[in-house]
This record gives sequence, C-alpha cells and structure tokens, in this order.
Amino acid sequence: MWTFDAPPLEYWRSTYNFSPDQQWLDHVRLSAVRIPGCSASFVSANGLVMTNHHCGRSCTASASPADTNYLDVGFAARNMSDEKHCEGMWADQLQSIQDVTDRVRRVQTATTSSAQVEQRNAEIGRIENECVQQTQLLCQVVTFYQGGMYSLYRYKHYTDIRLVMAPEGSIAFYGGDPDNFTYPRYDLDLTLLRVYENGQPLRPRDYLRWSAAGAAENELVFVVGNPGSTGRMLTMAQMEYLRDVDYPARLAQYDRLLRSYRARSASSPQAAREYENIIFSLENSKKAVTGYRVGLLDSSIMAKKQAFERDFRARVNADPKLRAQYGNAWTEIERAQRAIAAQARALQWQSFGGGSTLWNMAGGLVRIPLQIPLADSLRLPTYRGPALERIRQSELANTPLDTAFERMALAATFAAWKEALPPDDVLLRAALGYGNGDPEAAAARIIAQTSLADVAARRALLEGGTAAIARSTDPLIVLARQVEPVNRRLATRAAALEATISANAEKLGRAIYAAYGRSLPPDATFTLRISDGLVKGYAYNGTVAPYKTTFAGLYDRAASFDNKPPFELPKRWVDRKNRLDMTTPFDFVSTNDIIGGNSGSPVINRSAEVVGLIFDGNIESLPNRFIFTDEIARSVSVHSRSITEALRKMYDAEWIADELEGRVAAR
Amino acid sequence: MWTFDAPPLEYWRSTYNFSPDQQWLDHVRLSAVRIPGCSASFVSANGLVMTNHHCGRSCTASASPADTNYLDVGFAARNMSDEKHCEGMWADQLQSIQDVTDRVRRVQTATTSSAQVEQRNAEIGRIENECVQQTQLLCQVVTFYQGGMYSLYRYKHYTDIRLVMAPEGSIAFYGGDPDNFTYPRYDLDLTLLRVYENGQPLRPRDYLRWSAAGAAENELVFVVGNPGSTGRMLTMAQMEYLRDVDYPARLAQYDRLLRSYRARSASSPQAAREYENIIFSLENSKKAVTGYRVGLLDSSIMAKKQAFERDFRARVNADPKLRAQYGNAWTEIERAQRAIAAQARALQWQSFGGGSTLWNMAGGLVRIPLQIPLADSLRLPTYRGPALERIRQSELANTPLDTAFERMALAATFAAWKEALPPDDVLLRAALGYGNGDPEAAAARIIAQTSLADVAARRALLEGGTAAIARSTDPLIVLARQVEPVNRRLATRAAALEATISANAEKLGRAIYAAYGRSLPPDATFTLRISDGLVKGYAYNGTVAPYKTTFAGLYDRAASFDNKPPFELPKRWVDRKNRLDMTTPFDFVSTNDIIGGNSGSPVINRSAEVVGLIFDGNIESLPNRFIFTDEIARSVSVHSRSITEALRKMYDAEWIADELEGRVAAR
Repeated sequence: MWTFDAPPLEYWRSTYNFSPDQQWLDHVRLSAVRIPGCSASFVSANGLVMTNHHCGRSCTASASPADTNYLDVGFAARNMSDEKHCEGMWADQLQSIQDVTDRVRRVQTATTSSAQVEQRNAEIGRIENECVQQTQLLCQVVTFYQGGMYSLYRYKHYTDIRLVMAPEGSIAFYGGDPDNFTYPRYDLDLTLLRVYENGQPLRPRDYLRWSAAGAAENELVFVVGNPGSTGRMLTMAQMEYLRDVDYPARLAQYDRLLRSYRARSASSPQAAREYENIIFSLENSKKAVTGYRVGLLDSSIMAKKQAFERDFRARVNADPKLRAQYGNAWTEIERAQRAIAAQARALQWQSFGGGSTLWNMAGGLVRIPLQIPLADSLRLPTYRGPALERIRQSELANTPLDTAFERMALAATFAAWKEALPPDDVLLRAALGYGNGDPEAAAARIIAQTSLADVAARRALLEGGTAAIARSTDPLIVLARQVEPVNRRLATRAAALEATISANAEKLGRAIYAAYGRSLPPDATFTLRISDGLVKGYAYNGTVAPYKTTFAGLYDRAASFDNKPPFELPKRWVDRKNRLDMTTPFDFVSTNDIIGGNSGSPVINRSAEVVGLIFDGNIESLPNRFIFTDEIARSVSVHSRSITEALRKMYDAEWIADELEGRVAAR
Repeated sequence: MWTFDAPPLEYWRSTYNFSPDQQWLDHVRLSAVRIPGCSASFVSANGLVMTNHHCGRSCTASASPADTNYLDVGFAARNMSDEKHCEGMWADQLQSIQDVTDRVRRVQTATTSSAQVEQRNAEIGRIENECVQQTQLLCQVVTFYQGGMYSLYRYKHYTDIRLVMAPEGSIAFYGGDPDNFTYPRYDLDLTLLRVYENGQPLRPRDYLRWSAAGAAENELVFVVGNPGSTGRMLTMAQMEYLRDVDYPARLAQYDRLLRSYRARSASSPQAAREYENIIFSLENSKKAVTGYRVGLLDSSIMAKKQAFERDFRARVNADPKLRAQYGNAWTEIERAQRAIAAQARALQWQSFGGGSTLWNMAGGLVRIPLQIPLADSLRLPTYRGPALERIRQSELANTPLDTAFERMALAATFAAWKEALPPDDVLLRAALGYGNGDPEAAAARIIAQTSLADVAARRALLEGGTAAIARSTDPLIVLARQVEPVNRRLATRAAALEATISANAEKLGRAIYAAYGRSLPPDATFTLRISDGLVKGYAYNGTVAPYKTTFAGLYDRAASFDNKPPFELPKRWVDRKNRLDMTTPFDFVSTNDIIGGNSGSPVINRSAEVVGLIFDGNIESLPNRFIFTDEIARSVSVHSRSITEALRKMYDAEWIADELEGRVAAR
C-alpha cells in the first residue's frame, strides 16, 4: 500500500523488472478518484467512472423512480441523455501531495501532550485553510505513521455525478452473505457513473484505457485506490488484547443480536424486510472479525509480528536518542492495555449497550443532566463537543420502536449479565428482580412498564433534569440510575488508558519512521495508494483455486443450489443465458494488498490499462489487517472482459462497452 | 457401517421413519457385489454391473487392443456382442451370513495365547472348508470386533466379467491429484461391466432399478458396499502414537521420496511417464495421511474419542467379570505403544528403508543367510513362512534399476540420517565417510562402486552365504553388515510389542462387544455393510458447498484453468459440449459413512433405486477413519443422471442408458 510520493521503484524494478516513469505514476494517480467510502477511476475520455455496485448504492437508490428500485432491477442508460442525476455522490481527484511534517512538528512546543495535540490540530487547520484559499481545492492534512509524518493532500472535488449503469443487486452481490469474503466468486459488482462539469460530461485529461485481453495468469497488476484502515503498526500487546478480550466479546455480542433479529425476522415477511440489512451487516461484521481473529490465533502470523517487534525494538534501543524518546512506549502500551483488559468485562456489562434502543435511551436520559454542567474536557469522551447535543436531539426524536425486538434484546442482555456477573451483583439482582430471576420475564415486565417509548415521557424527563430523573419510578430509569455511576467510573478510566495508548502509539509511529524510513508503507488512511501483485490461484479446500472464474461457474453455482436465494439468477441472466460466451473470465484473484475502502479500485496492467475491478478479498485475506501475506490471501476482482461481455449481451449497452473500449471518439 | 445381519431398524425408524422389511434388505444385499479391492452392484436385468473407473482399471487395461488404451481414450460397446473380455476381474455376491463365534471360541482351550491363535486359525480353516464342500460357494470367516465375533460369509463367485463401458481417464478422474479427496467435484468415475455365466449374460434375480430423478437434496440414501478398514476401536494411546510418531515419520518419508521422484520425472518425458503412477500414489498417500492427522490434531475429535474411552472403561470396570478379563488392556497397550515410540526413531534409521532398491537388496542379502537357519517362529516377522523365499527370489530377479534415482534416494536417506542421528553415530560416520561428510557425494560414490545392480553379483553373494557376506567389500554390503544386528534387535523388540498390542486389542474387541453388543457396528472388514445418510451440502471455504455440482461446473473449472492438465477436457467433451444439458447434476455429496473399499458402491433411495455411485470423500471426511462425524465430512458420488446423460450425449450409448433405465425388456 505505497503512497504516490514514495513508490518503491527499486523494489518494482528488481522484483518485476518494471520501472514506471513519473508520467506513468502521475497518469495513474490522476485517473483514480475517491468517492464516499470507496475508490473509483476514470475509464473513458468522456468522464465515465467505474466503481462497485455496493459503492454506488446511495446514488443508484436516489436515481430510482418512485415505483422501482434500480438497486434490485438494475439500470443501463440508453444514451448519455438518459443518465440519471443522483444524490450524495462526489468524486475527489488527488492533485498533489506535500510533506508538512516539519511545519506541524515545529508548533508543538507545549510541555503537556494534550496542549501539544491542540497546537497540532490548530496548525493542521491553518495549513488546510491556507491551501483552500490558495488553490480552491479540497485540502486535507493526512496523518501517517500515527503521527510520524504529516502530508497535505489536495483534491479536485467533483459533485455532479450521474448514474450510467448498475446491474441487478442479485448479480452484483451474487451468493450474498455466504459468498461474501470468499472465492471462487461470480459477482458483477459494478456501477458506472459519469462526472459532469458545468452540465457537460467531463473530459478528463487522464483516464485509464481498457485492456483488450484483461487480466492474465501470473500477470503483474496494480491496484490504485484508498484502503481505509489497517492495524499493522499495532504492538503485540494490542493484538493480544484484540484476540483475547475485544474480539471474543464482540463476537458474542453479534451472536446475541443476531439471535434476536433473526427471531423477529422469522415472525413476518414485513419484519424480514425490515431487519434484512441489519442482519446482513451483523453477519458481515461477524465474518470479518472471525477472520481477523483467525489471523491472531495463527501462531505463524503472530511469530512474524513478534519477530518484527523484536527487530523494531532492537533498532530503537540501539540508538540512544531513539531509545530515550521511544524506548518505553511498548511497555506503556502493554501496561495500559492490561489495565483495560482487567476492567473490560465489568465495563461491558455495566453499560447501556446490548442492542435495546430503550435501554440506550434510558442511559442518555440519566447522563445528559450530569454531563451538561461539566467542562467539555471533563465530560465522557462520547459526550464531548457536538456529540452531547446530538444525543439530546435523538432523545427527542420520534424514533419508531419494535417492542418485540426491545424485549428480546433486553432479555439477551440480562441473560448475558446473568452468565457474566456474580449472583449477588447489585445490578443483576435489580434487573432480574423484575422477573423472579428469569431474564425473559424481567425484560417483558420492564418493557411493558416503561413509558420511555413515548417521546413525551422522554421530553418530560429531559426537561425535568436531575430532579426528574431522581424521582422517576420508570423501571429503565431506575436501572439506569444504578448503572450510571459505575459505568462513568469505568469509562473515565478506560478513556484515560486509551489516551495513554494513543500517545504511545504516536511515539511508535514516529519511531518506526525514524528506524525504517519510508521502506515500510504507513498504515492505511483512506488516501490514495498503489499496491503491486500478481494474478495467481492458490491452495484451497485440499486442492487449488483457479486464478479466474468463468460465466459457466455462475450457472453451475445457480443450478447446484436449485436457483435458491442467494444463488438465484436475475431474470435477464436466465432469459439471455445463451447469448453469453460461457468461457468469458468473470472474476479473478491477485496478490495485491487491499482492505476496506479499496472497493471499486481499478486493477491495471503495466500499460496502465484496466484489467479488472477490485471488490473483495478471500476469507484467507482477512488476517492481512495485521500483517500482509500473499501465500493464500488474495484480493478478488471483477474481470474487465465480463464487464464488456455483460454490457453487450445482457444490458443492450453496446454504446457503453464501446466507450470503455475506446471505440468511439470522445465528444 | 452396519452389517446385514444386524441392521439398526429401530434407529432408522425413529430417525427417518423408514422401516425396510427383510425382503428389502435381502434384495439390496443380493444386488451388491464385491470386486477386487472395490464395491459394485447389479444394475440391470441382464447382469450389467456398475463400479468406478479406478475399480475397473485392470479390466479396462486388459481389454484394450495393442495399439490403444481404453483407460485413456474410453470405450463404449456398440452392442452386447461388442463387449470385451477382460482379465483379473471377479464379482462376489453375498448369499448368507452365519454367526460362528461360539464354534471358534469353543476350541480355544490352550493356555498360551499363541497356542490359542493356532487353535482358532485351525477351526476357521475347518469351518471354511466344510462350507465350501457343502455349498460350492466361496466361504470366508470374518473376524469382527478384533476377535469379539466371528461370522461365516458365503459368496457366489463370478469370474466371466466383460467390459461394457469406461469413459476417458481424464473425465473419470477429472482434476487429478489436486481434486482427489475434495469437493466440489466433476468426475464421471464410472466403469460398466457385465457378468456372464456359461457364455451368456447373467440374469440376476436381484438388481437395483434406476431412479428417474436421481439424488435430491435432503433425501435419505443408503450406501451398500465393502468398506476396507477403519481405526475406530483404537485406544487413545494408539491414536496418539499415530499422531505424534508414525504419521509425522511417514509424511517426512513421502516428502523425501517425492523430491527424488519429481527430480527424476523432470529429467525427461520418458522418466515423467515412468514415475507418473508412483508420484500419484505417493501424493495420494500424503494427502490421506495428512487428512487423518488433521483429525488426530483436532481437539474436538480427540475429546469425543476420550469421552468414548472413558465410558467404555467405566462399563468394563463396573462389571467384575469384564474387569478381570479386560480391565488392564488399555494400560498394556499404552505401555507397549510407549516402548515402540521410544525406539521408533532408531528403528526408522537403522533399517533398509528409504526408497533405494539397492540398499533394500543389500539388507536382504545380509539377512537371508542369518534367517534361514532359524526356526520359523524365531525369524523376523517379515521373513516368516513363504516370505523368506519370496525375498530370496526377488534378489535373483532381473529388476531394472534407475541408477540416477538410486543415487537420489540413497542421498536423501543419508541426509535424513545426518539430520536425525548424532554426529558420532557409527553408521552415520561409515556412510558419510564415502563422501567426506556430504550425503550426496557419499551416495554417488557408493552407487558408482557397488556391484549389486548386477544380478550375477547378487547371486554370488546369496550362494556364498555368511562367508561371502563377511568377505564382501561392496560398500552397500559393508554398510548393511553394520545395520543388520542393530536393526534385528530393534525389529525383534518391536514385533514382540506389536504382538502385545494385538492381543490386548483383541481383548478390547471382545470387551466392546460384551459392553455395547451390536449397537456399535464393528470396524470395517472389506465385507458388505449398509450405511444411511442424507444428501446435503456443508459449510466450506467461508461459504457453503452445494449438495450437487452440474456439468456447467465442469466447463467452468476447465476454462478457469485455461484447459491445462489435470483440468483439461477429453476431446469428446469439447466437441460435443453443446449436446449436454448443462444443468444436469454431475456429482453430489451425502453424509453416508464410507471409506476405501466402498469405491464403486451404489447409492440408493428408500425404494432401493440407484441415485448415485460412490467414488470418494471430501477432504474433511479423512478423519472419519478414527471417528465418524457428519457435520462437514461428506462422501462424494457420481449422480445417476450424469451417467445416463453422458451415455446418451457423449458416448453414443443409448442402448446402455436404456438398459439402465429399464426401457428394454431383459432378454
């Protein structure tokens, strides 16, 4: 995940015999754009932009007419004037990068670290403002190496974006949740947009040409996009905390929530529709966290991290100056992490989490009057700045509530308390007291008795302040009053410990930069990176996974599951099946280093031609969050040839395929 | 894996609501046949027999004309008179089963266990002889529960078997070694034979009808065949020995051999052909043993075995009589197993193994004159009975030798010695002395100097007896003289320990039968069993594997690998592709309990109709050797519909498909 101002030219030359010039790098950088949460690229002379189906969701949804949903049924403009305006979409094109580390560092003259943070933030604000004034561009100072380096990124910001083409959701996300994060794969995860400027299609100077052949086996390819975040600079202590404390707790919580949502989902078709997205999102998180944890449980991966940490510490300790500045950071982090771990279970249960909205609201109602009088810096982190007012507003909003779900979520929380807390725990006894010791009965009685579902009741409590809270006999408020002081004490302590970790992580970021220079690329920051790799199969399932799949495999998987969801085909793909060349490559895998945020990135060859479109990683790639390996970890892309084949044969969109392939002159 | 004289009728009724009558069971038993190393079944009124391609190899090879090999190019008889005689094939149809435990047990009156074994074997011989005289059938006394029970199995033995149809090897074994033991799968692993009697097609009273629909998802199906061997009665001590000592040593040896064979194979196309089979066989063993070991390393599987052993010991200990007879068997096995483990490494290196034929021959030459004078029972186990003469004959045979391979195998053995033995080991120093401490140089010099490749030299040594051996300066004989006494001591001790384990295992077999009766089916014995299961997909690769594959998947896999071997399609399957209905089910998985020997077993539905043909298990099923689980372990079958579809569309064999489907009257 190399930044464009420090490409590993010597490494590419010696590994691949590939030596791009500055023009190649500039061309590739300017052909890429960043869109909300995703990556994308210019792929035609007339401003066509390629990204994933799931990256264009909001645009596609907003472009749909009232009686239809393009996300489900797909859309292909008949011509340019048929392209649909859409909302909430923008595209940022990276114009230039400037190292501003010295300038940021220079102002940090204060003696306390919190004052230093303020000085740093103020200077970053100044740099960004100056930049906007001077260039009219979007300007952002990016923090690399956890504070080891600061760079000013300047973007051209486009806002008139229109929908050109999106396939049916069921082919874009074929295989649904089961196939998510896996390979072999059969997804056309594509949206085509067009950038307009002054009401006319943009004619970008730089755009990626389309490769005639597409990705070939063992070919060198590059992914250009915006990886969101990685944890590759985490210390062993931090990773062990995730492995042993944080991830297990999260996974248990996902399971509790999934049980409740699934029970609700099974109750009626309407409930099924209502909870479909949240269930999918939880499944997705569960699969991802499970995969991350697999990496942390893998002794060979942990041994590699350990070896790196040893080498890093040795380098720091070998230099007296580095040692004095950074030498104790690992120990500080470890100590804080251990203290967080020691109270993690208590904090998890003595809280307003667990999934019940009413319980969460009760927490807010009890807390707001206590937090308001405090100076901002003395408030709980989640109540600082504008957050407090947002929480207050949400208490006054007319949020629709599913009583049955509330009951289940609260029962699940109580059941978890019962399992985790000693029988004589005051909170536990108070809660279960409502149900003669039975979590379900207690939750049912509390939800039946509480008036918090009524916005007027919440408003009355809010306006009544601490006195109203103290007087309330609402069972949720009564319980929340018990939890609040315990939670506040634990959360305050956790916040202080997190701040210690953060300050020492910043030290390590500087140390890593001092010890290794830019030979180690910084953790992902949702800014533009370029990653090299090879198109290549891998060992899986006792056999080998091919480097690509074909359309035939899509029809095999559909028929193998007797066309049951999520393996059913869109009608168009059934009706027009015989038009397709079944041997057309559909998806493919490569060893490029990607992570969330890279979705929609173009995959290009040495000639900077599009050979594919990144949309996922295989299940084996999830541990790459912590350390990159390419033995069996793979990124998964839509093959460029399946895009043009589908446009021509399935979507009657010859004109778009022609435009991608450069067969028509730019207008 | 239930025997036909103790089907679990109550279990089937309560689990599946299925209650077959005795007629159903008899019909199914008589429709099944056992062929060399495999299973098969009658599938038409005219004696058509269905089995796997790999089970019919010798038949198909022997039926091929001089200029062609049906194993590669396939064969389909144009009509009945076109069917090809073949050699080495027979088919045994199980007529009846009789419990003879009492009779065998009654004669075992001696006080020593070796005398008891002789009494037992003599009685078994008498029972078999009497049976043959009375019935003219093939009679075999089968030992169940390691001696807990003895049954007389009577078979009708057919020997005139002809080849009707076999597809190309590359479609029968599509995906080759990589896809072996895996699923999803795309194999037409089929041979069709016909049994003749008195020169006419047999008209069997019992044969399996063909299902019109074939296997459906979640359908109850039965596998009827002859599982070869399982290790489900092994004690924890025995399994730990396999896991920690035996399997790791075997896997290391496979790797050493594979390196040598692969190096030779790469040297010329002729060598590649020559070593193809042995490399495949080693790969196959390596994959299987790796899979078995995965099971033994799986803590949940081991926990289940442990729980069973605890329960079993508790039952034995709870009964004073059982306790007196069998109570100490576990401890005896554990003690002997530990003693074997303690000397296993020494025995492995101080031996004539390692893959070099010349080194193995040297061992024979040195040993034969020492073993000949001994009474049979005092000889090493591998030299007892007719084995000694076989070894002597092989020394005198004109075995072709690949000098380059001999050098590599010996160098690999020396390198392993160097890694395993202390630097001052006498044998190691003697061997490496030929090459200044370098294994490769030592092997090269020894192979260059030895005259053992010459059969005359070997004959001279054999005829010269101990004196000639003592005088020899041949470097392999010199080394073998050093190894022999050490090896003899270790091997003798190992044989005594193995006998202890075997005697105590027999005790446990009787104990298990006494404690659990026939509710636990006995370990596999390559005799007829029936196994129930469901047609069902499973969790794999982060997603789900479908219960079936389709022809479309075959074409996907071929195109995905750009038609490279072992994923290339036979020409016929390329040329005639468009004739096929691509959605035809090709292979499928079910939860039936099978193991090697079950190859070629029919899969039948409740109506005893053929819905598939067993040919493999998935990689997750390998640990089933030690304990049966059906969460993700699956058996893999050819779907009956792909057989008729292929016969009609690919092989111009409508008449065979019609016969299978019962569309023609029996002649």
